Amino acid sequence: MNLPRGNAVIAQSGGPTVVINQSLVGCIEALRDFGSVDGIFGARNAVSGMVRDDLVELTETDAKRLDAIAVTPGAVLGSSRDKPDEEYCRRIFEKLAARDICWFFYIGGNDSADTCRIISEVAATSGSELRAFHIPKTIDNDLVLNDHTPGFPSAARFVACAVMGDSLDNKALPGIKIDVIMGRHAGFLTAASVLARTDAGSGPHLVYLPETVFDIDRFIADVDRVYSQEGRCVIAVSEGVHDAAGTAIAQKLAEDLEGEVERDAHGNVQLSGSGALG
Amino acid sequence: MNLPRGNAVIAQSGGPTVVINQSLVGCIEALRDFGSVDGIFGARNAVSGMVRDDLVELTETDAKRLDAIAVTPGAVLGSSRDKPDEEYCRRIFEKLAARDICWFFYIGGNDSADTCRIISEVAATSGSELRAFHIPKTIDNDLVLNDHTPGFPSAARFVACAVMGDSLDNKALPGIKIDVIMGRHAGFLTAASVLARTDAGSGPHLVYLPETVFDIDRFIADVDRVYSQEGRCVIAVSEGVHDAAGTAIAQKLAEDLEGEVERDAHGNVQLSGSGALG
Repeated sequence: MNLPRGNAVIAQSGGPTVVINQSLVGCIEALRDFGSVDGIFGARNAVSGMVRDDLVELTETDAKRLDAIAVTPGAVLGSSRDKPDEEYCRRIFEKLAARDICWFFYIGGNDSADTCRIISEVAATSGSELRAFHIPKTIDNDLVLNDHTPGFPSAARFVACAVMGDSLDNKALPGIKIDVIMGRHAGFLTAASVLARTDAGSGPHLVYLPETVFDIDRFIADVDRVYSQEGRCVIAVSEGVHDAAGTAIAQKLAEDLEGEVERDAHGNVQLSGSGALG
Repeated sequence: MNLPRGNAVIAQSGGPTVVINQSLVGCIEALRDFGSVDGIFGARNAVSGMVRDDLVELTETDAKRLDAIAVTPGAVLGSSRDKPDEEYCRRIFEKLAARDICWFFYIGGNDSADTCRIISEVAATSGSELRAFHIPKTIDNDLVLNDHTPGFPSAARFVACAVMGDSLDNKALPGIKIDVIMGRHAGFLTAASVLARTDAGSGPHLVYLPETVFDIDRFIADVDRVYSQEGRCVIAVSEGVHDAAGTAIAQKLAEDLEGEVERDAHGNVQLSGSGALG
């Protein structure tokens, strides 16, 4: 295969995970052993740094420093939630060309993969040799062809520990507690809550995933049954649970309450309060 | 001193902490070495168990089991948020008398201390020898005569870790983040957030305690200054910050938003979203 020769840029996107710097360091180490790359750059704050030509030199960063970066949580290059359109990608492409960059590695989630695709298409129509690669971060674990994505296990551990604490609180102060867990269309993180079941009677007593239809009557019957038996109930529910028509329950509740439905920059309805899991 | 002789009861109240079972086990061990106590009981779910005579035997619980209980987070006897009035305390007092209990140990926060006082007064007016003791849990650390209350360090650690994570997120995705921290009249937990400052530039960049007057204009100027310098700002603020008249800022904001001001069973205005710190 006739590979282009030139510089490489690496960027980190979206909410930082505990291990996103491992992916960065792995990429740097692999590029050093790869024959077709000269200089290695990191983009500050993802696409927003690329479009401003705000890059840092990583070609000579020593092994000791890389080892320290690898075990540091958070995104060491800085991140961004910008979602570039074709015009934005065209400006990025021009900046990269001016730096003789023909290898682009983007560590992030689904939206970052989409940015890779757009930049790749812009490059192709410009006759450029730029190769864009997506390095999955993806706490949701919703990619095929792999056992797990790098961001999943640490996020799953967070969910398990949080639900474990909630279950202990709920055991001491009995009642009904609903934990809403991230994962719009993927139930892996919500399912990870069952790791909190350290002994008989531990919560979560009920788990609802977005891969199946959520029936409010069945839910109420489930809670009633558990509460009658245990005198308490801890529930793990995905933010993305939906009715038979595919409408998210969170969206229906917000509309019933006449609350304003919030959307993020990617047009996604905000189904839960925070991006705590990155 | 002429001490009464009889049985003892121990109970755990309010939100469970990581170490409230240490206090329970410490109390059991001390009572075993104390000459004036025969049987030792634990009350299930605090005052609500005492008023129903729902007690468990702890007199013979073996050392291995006690050691395991001591290192288990959560309240092993179960807890309650009931706040007994004098009539409730009178019923408790009658149940205790029927069990020949003349020593009462109540592990909890400020409200539990108040319950101890009421039961003690009811007992005194009935000519009973009942002695009621409060064992402080108190994550707020707002008691005098001690260096720290048992519940404070683990809650402080939680605050420090949470703000550390937020500061890393905020470094990667710059913006302004406000962390509202428990402690209605005591700033110890909010102050513990500075443990998150692991290196230069780490958040929290600004810290606001309830022991001083919160001035919204000064706050905005502070945030503007930090944001101009650092390009980001992580703020740790006590739920109890208040204006010069003593009105909580959270209450003012809720009223400005025409939101309903929530109160808990103790008549306290709900200043933050959850009792996550117990």
